[in-house]
Amino acid sequence: MSVEITHFVTSGPDDVTDLGRALHDAQAGGFAPRAIIAKTEGTATINDFSRALARRAIEDCVADRVGREDSVQIILSTGCEGVITPGGYLLSESTSGGIPGLAIGVARSQPLPASSMITMAHSQAAEAVVAQAIAAAGIDTGDVALVLMKSPVLTRLAAVDLPSRQRELANSTALSRGVAALGIAAALGDIDPRELTDEAIGRRDDLYCRRAMVFSGTETQCCEAIVLGNRPGFPVAVRTGIVRDLIDIDGMATIIAPDSQHPIEAARQAAESGRVRAAFLKGGIAPDGRVRGQRTTAFSSDLDPDKHMRAAASGVLAALLGDTRSFISGGAEHQAPPGSGVFTVVMAG
Amino acid sequence: MSVEITHFVTSGPDDVTDLGRALHDAQAGGFAPRAIIAKTEGTATINDFSRALARRAIEDCVADRVGREDSVQIILSTGCEGVITPGGYLLSESTSGGIPGLAIGVARSQPLPASSMITMAHSQAAEAVVAQAIAAAGIDTGDVALVLMKSPVLTRLAAVDLPSRQRELANSTALSRGVAALGIAAALGDIDPRELTDEAIGRRDDLYCRRAMVFSGTETQCCEAIVLGNRPGFPVAVRTGIVRDLIDIDGMATIIAPDSQHPIEAARQAAESGRVRAAFLKGGIAPDGRVRGQRTTAFSSDLDPDKHMRAAASGVLAALLGDTRSFISGGAEHQAPPGSGVFTVVMAG
Amino acid sequence: MSVEITHFVTSGPDDVTDLGRALHDAQAGGFAPRAIIAKTEGTATINDFSRALARRAIEDCVADRVGREDSVQIILSTGCEGVITPGGYLLSESTSGGIPGLAIGVARSQPLPASSMITMAHSQAAEAVVAQAIAAAGIDTGDVALVLMKSPVLTRLAAVDLPSRQRELANSTALSRGVAALGIAAALGDIDPRELTDEAIGRRDDLYCRRAMVFSGTETQCCEAIVLGNRPGFPVAVRTGIVRDLIDIDGMATIIAPDSQHPIEAARQAAESGRVRAAFLKGGIAPDGRVRGQRTTAFSSDLDPDKHMRAAASGVLAALLGDTRSFISGGAEHQAPPGSGVFTVVMAG
Amino acid sequence: MSVEITHFVTSGPDDVTDLGRALHDAQAGGFAPRAIIAKTEGTATINDFSRALARRAIEDCVADRVGREDSVQIILSTGCEGVITPGGYLLSESTSGGIPGLAIGVARSQPLPASSMITMAHSQAAEAVVAQAIAAAGIDTGDVALVLMKSPVLTRLAAVDLPSRQRELANSTALSRGVAALGIAAALGDIDPRELTDEAIGRRDDLYCRRAMVFSGTETQCCEAIVLGNRPGFPVAVRTGIVRDLIDIDGMATIIAPDSQHPIEAARQAAESGRVRAAFLKGGIAPDGRVRGQRTTAFSSDLDPDKHMRAAASGVLAALLGDTRSFISGGAEHQAPPGSGVFTVVMAG
Repeated sequence: MSVEITHFVTSGPDDVTDLGRALHDAQAGGFAPRAIIAKTEGTATINDFSRALARRAIEDCVADRVGREDSVQIILSTGCEGVITPGGYLLSESTSGGIPGLAIGVARSQPLPASSMITMAHSQAAEAVVAQAIAAAGIDTGDVALVLMKSPVLTRLAAVDLPSRQRELANSTALSRGVAALGIAAALGDIDPRELTDEAIGRRDDLYCRRAMVFSGTETQCCEAIVLGNRPGFPVAVRTGIVRDLIDIDGMATIIAPDSQHPIEAARQAAESGRVRAAFLKGGIAPDGRVRGQRTTAFSSDLDPDKHMRAAASGVLAALLGDTRSFISGGAEHQAPPGSGVFTVVMAG
Repeated sequence: MSVEITHFVTSGPDDVTDLGRALHDAQAGGFAPRAIIAKTEGTATINDFSRALARRAIEDCVADRVGREDSVQIILSTGCEGVITPGGYLLSESTSGGIPGLAIGVARSQPLPASSMITMAHSQAAEAVVAQAIAAAGIDTGDVALVLMKSPVLTRLAAVDLPSRQRELANSTALSRGVAALGIAAALGDIDPRELTDEAIGRRDDLYCRRAMVFSGTETQCCEAIVLGNRPGFPVAVRTGIVRDLIDIDGMATIIAPDSQHPIEAARQAAESGRVRAAFLKGGIAPDGRVRGQRTTAFSSDLDPDKHMRAAASGVLAALLGDTRSFISGGAEHQAPPGSGVFTVVMAG
Repeated sequence: MSVEITHFVTSGPDDVTDLGRALHDAQAGGFAPRAIIAKTEGTATINDFSRALARRAIEDCVADRVGREDSVQIILSTGCEGVITPGGYLLSESTSGGIPGLAIGVARSQPLPASSMITMAHSQAAEAVVAQAIAAAGIDTGDVALVLMKSPVLTRLAAVDLPSRQRELANSTALSRGVAALGIAAALGDIDPRELTDEAIGRRDDLYCRRAMVFSGTETQCCEAIVLGNRPGFPVAVRTGIVRDLIDIDGMATIIAPDSQHPIEAARQAAESGRVRAAFLKGGIAPDGRVRGQRTTAFSSDLDPDKHMRAAASGVLAALLGDTRSFISGGAEHQAPPGSGVFTVVMAG
Repeated sequence: MSVEITHFVTSGPDDVTDLGRALHDAQAGGFAPRAIIAKTEGTATINDFSRALARRAIEDCVADRVGREDSVQIILSTGCEGVITPGGYLLSESTSGGIPGLAIGVARSQPLPASSMITMAHSQAAEAVVAQAIAAAGIDTGDVALVLMKSPVLTRLAAVDLPSRQRELANSTALSRGVAALGIAAALGDIDPRELTDEAIGRRDDLYCRRAMVFSGTETQCCEAIVLGNRPGFPVAVRTGIVRDLIDIDGMATIIAPDSQHPIEAARQAAESGRVRAAFLKGGIAPDGRVRGQRTTAFSSDLDPDKHMRAAASGVLAALLGDTRSFISGGAEHQAPPGSGVFTVVMAG
């Protein structure tokens, strides 16, 4: 099995013109659509319904063309600040064609009750769903390059009758991401499961996964996973690494071009020649708001910290690739050490 | 005469600890403070009073240490989104020391009546004040590398009794910048003064200055200018150029290291070695919101376009310099062709 | 023919549970659904897609239950700030039952090209559609109590290639409302059509309709109208009047209880007894931002003026009715004199 | 001793024209300025520096005119949404004149270390400062009508090195208000001090003060109190009560006109005749966001809940008084039962 990855753009959350074309082309080429991961434009506030609209439009489109919508895992992440081009990737599987050696697996948990959220039960749901997705991908845990996960947010309304600690932590997108990342880390063997307690969530900075990107969302009650990995015996198709911080253009370049003496130039050439088929960046800023020792206002302004992160990161990655069509997300809680980030590239040829 | 340029940081708009130290050091070294140009953190909305607070704190600090506050031109620009470190530059003049060949001149117009704003009278006030600042710098127009200008905004309240066109265009920070940039362009000989009419303001994309950065503000009614240039017979100390777009890291690198084969690497080395003493970036996005042909949401989101621009640009420049302490501003109306930007570097040694 | 009006609530833009129940009850009672007018929660920014989501959900719900979705006119208005309860009204028609004497008519124009927007062509489209809706209601112009209209917004993107004046006025929700209100006024005979010119739009404060509420929207390119009126020979069922300003609780009370000596108490009793079946408030603040001679920050803050208006008005009307389930909207351009508003009540019994 | 209370308006945070006039008039009349309590316009975000600017301007103005600025307690509260007129009240004391029987006392705590914030130490500091202010007022605890308090916010930056619970609760203005309100309640004997534990803060809804309004602020590290009360033997000059909810116009009217059969009409007449000298409203919405059983979006939107509350409450109170110049604030944590509010009126004659 091999996987094709195709970028599509959107003119709004409910625009599926380009996605529809991509689905058509995939099917015409004998590929079975497996996953859609997209950035949705919207305000990224609690009353941003852009993802619900996008999901509805995409599900209708998929149902229309593929027939059985459940077979395609959809992960939507809001926030296209800076120079992010709204759009996403379609991942399709086939016995031939596409990128050889690239493996994909998807899975979705049962809906989590509100009382489970931001607790170990939430983490365990994430862990279980990753195990399922890895199995679906047909690879070993060690061959997993990236777990993309959508994790539900405990809303303030849903928390009204919960214990006070959960009430106080409600509406936190950071904790939604963090708790799921701990579960992924457990599934991948990156942390010792005995370390995992309710107390660790959002607090134990030393516990993190190195191969995960988690997105919070109020539009789902489930943990939803897409696993990407490399099949042994093929050239490495997808590579993930920790980057030092949001502005670590060298780190990103080195993940793209690990063997080059001039990684920035090599990365740019790879991008220009079309060999960079997809790029995913999950960037964080340390809790003290500092980058390279200097203060930023990421945690002390009217803008949500994620907006600062996404917008700044979009500049860095677009400068490196000469292209604004990447997948950029903020908030790397328990996904990387505080202040650092995760970068993944899918390459062909 | 030579000029020293020193960066200072702030922990808030009214924090002058580091500036006070810089002023002290300058005076102790025989330098006369001439100008302060700083980025202020704040919401950058019409009810953001951070600049007024910063100005009050800085003026008190200057009055305290320098004695005659009017002799120091202060330009404040709000907006530290992304990874911009709040702070600024102090420029001081001396007969020896500092950066040889770097020239500075400052000037301020009379307060503009509301009825003049966003009209040719506004542009002419900008033009006149630039001529004064150039004269103060003691250089020729051709040796000017950069004009930094603060231009007043016509507020909705001030426009209530004005003609309907001005009323409709009130609160526009883009027009405040654009009209002043036209005046600067006239002063520098970059455009034919006969082209300048009220109708051209904000409309004639082909009219622009190449050596100006303009900042709008409701805290002043005056056009306030700081001119930087190079004295003939010295190594070039300040260099300005047009960059293709917000993500044109090559363009920025080439302005820093014009003679290098590997400009990005050379620029980074210059930054690491401390030779890059100041960097100013004014970035714009074309009115259709596209960057390298792809859509962005800069003009179609809840965030002010300037916030998208500043935040994205902060990532690009910080990635290049490995440092978040630059001066970054959005909105290059009539300062560069639509979609492109202006980049200035001050270098020593 | 008579009309029933039923309130429904929503737990989110795509929640049609209560609306579905209302539709079911209406049909079970022999009523034909004619119109839905609802307030949608969302950010009310240019990238708020809540209306698109709500429209999709409502259209699906209507198609499901009524069969021919086009027969039901849907007007959605975003913004539930303050104490506005998200939800709306279903209006259904029957030969008997409901509120006797209440008349309804709906109509929708062809999509307007961008080049027509904020011009007389836009106004004329509004005028024509009102005439159609009045005819559909089967009443005379003099018996019209209220025209509710959705008017399209000229977006910045759609205006990119238009003349500079339209470009500069793009994204203005105020002008979208104003231009349509002028057309309604012409249709109702409230202003002399010869007064209507492009120059009047947004400028001639003395031209206004007294029986219109207009809502701007990017989700439609059409002018969409719902007309409410009273059939001669029945008790007055729907009453509209100008209120002095946003806080004119006496004015509102008097429209509810025109014959009472103690209108506030009488209005409250009418509300408590269930005789107030619907209330619509369109509130404005004068361009100088003053209310009863005192300054407000409605036009000089980070919040959109409409948010100030809606939230403040929601307090006034909820205080009067003891109920937060009314229809409240900001921005009464050309619908009432500057600073005043329009209030409509539908009463039974 | 008696107290005069004078309203002043501001055209911006640093406008002290009207306050200066009020100070002049007070002193000319033999009154000693004791306190200034004002609403400042600004974004009410963490990077809103309007209060710092206002404080600076007011302190300069007071120092200028009164000489010893410390003798005047200044409490500033941000947020003038809806139809709130920016401005405030000057309270001055004299042996004769003013409102007979009205008593005032002020006090300020030492700065609180970050580690004390949102803990019992914070509450105890509030308690102690209230006791001091009551003593300064020269009245008994039972005669206290209202405690106005400014309480410091634990910022995220200050919390970086604190225990995880404090870190997680950082930036919470609600907890800053709540913890201080518990201390005030203890000082006034409204709750049993043995009930007070760290666990109660923000959690024990049954613990609340009935005579307090607390405002959070990042501009001070101190608890700052202004106590208003009635001297025995005089007509009641200041009256406080709990109002049922934000829209409880009857409750407000009854506090103004407790003996009237038609309290709304009586309250309006009192306002029109100038007998209402000051009105303070602290409004809350229950954690489930419901008002009179119906949903609002106060806790589920992009707007801070306080903005919804202030704006809606401004409509209610302005409708009642026919005047927008009151003091309105949101967030009544531990100051009233969840969902209800506190209303205070100062009356003369």
